[in-house]
Amino acid sequence: MILVFTGDGKGKTTSAFGMAIRAIGHQKKVIIIQFLKKGKYGETKLFEKLGIEIYQFGRKDFVLEATKEDYEMAQKALKKAYEKLKEKPFLLILDEVNVAIDMGLIKLKDVIDLLKKAEETHIILTGRNAPQELIKYADLVTEMKKIKHYYDMGIKAIEGLEY
Amino acid sequence: MILVFTGDGKGKTTSAFGMAIRAIGHQKKVIIIQFLKKGKYGETKLFEKLGIEIYQFGRKDFVLEATKEDYEMAQKALKKAYEKLKEKPFLLILDEVNVAIDMGLIKLKDVIDLLKKAEETHIILTGRNAPQELIKYADLVTEMKKIKHYYDMGIKAIEGLEY
Repeated sequence: MILVFTGDGKGKTTSAFGMAIRAIGHQKKVIIIQFLKKGKYGETKLFEKLGIEIYQFGRKDFVLEATKEDYEMAQKALKKAYEKLKEKPFLLILDEVNVAIDMGLIKLKDVIDLLKKAEETHIILTGRNAPQELIKYADLVTEMKKIKHYYDMGIKAIEGLEY
Repeated sequence: MILVFTGDGKGKTTSAFGMAIRAIGHQKKVIIIQFLKKGKYGETKLFEKLGIEIYQFGRKDFVLEATKEDYEMAQKALKKAYEKLKEKPFLLILDEVNVAIDMGLIKLKDVIDLLKKAEETHIILTGRNAPQELIKYADLVTEMKKIKHYYDMGIKAIEGLEY
């Protein structure tokens, strides 16, 4: 199955991570590749302990304007995804990949080609602005729609909730 | 913070569970109370291992039409939530509580009263049809909107993905 979590609301990455936990609870192999992100979040330490492989390709801060370095890292992340898919994990999570496509850091075609090779691997793609062609290709799409968020009230990210 | 995950799309419970993992990754106390659900899912076994407390109040099958037993179990679940809040966990997850309210198994007022006692505890409420008054009260609300789901193509729940 190909699953897409998109939209501007909270819950895309955390939902993918909740699914990682569910799968590892069944002793299934899970691999996470994070585009545009780097850093030890609360969950990443735990993932390593649980045997979930996690690879991060990004700068510490979230990318607003892409540089050559961002482009290269996104390419590396995609290459890693191709490599890891060959190991036939039960679940492969491409976190923030939709944003990488949207920013022009990787080609949609290269991502779709990856999905076509999936066979028995379930793939989750997260991030805002999932392109229509990806939505068409996917088996399940949820739009996480922001109704309200405390960020909008000027409240900053909270340790344990956001990271 | 009071967080609500509602809507008809996949990702409400899994997102709450992803947040449980994030919090426990920071060694914070997490308690999960599940309304209308019972059974060992992939994640529940793992939660116990990680020291996340999880309490289930439901039948094995999802409730479509509520019986007296369902009403009593939902009341017990709410009582447990009041009790556990006194322990001041970092995160308290009330899974499917919105559905229990919507079905008339528990009173919205009793849930709002609970939220008012939260103090330093963050509470996540999941489930379809979150009532407007709850949305108003919450600090963050995401609507998980179904764009498509493979259930609609006649595909059944997959072990490791849905349970």
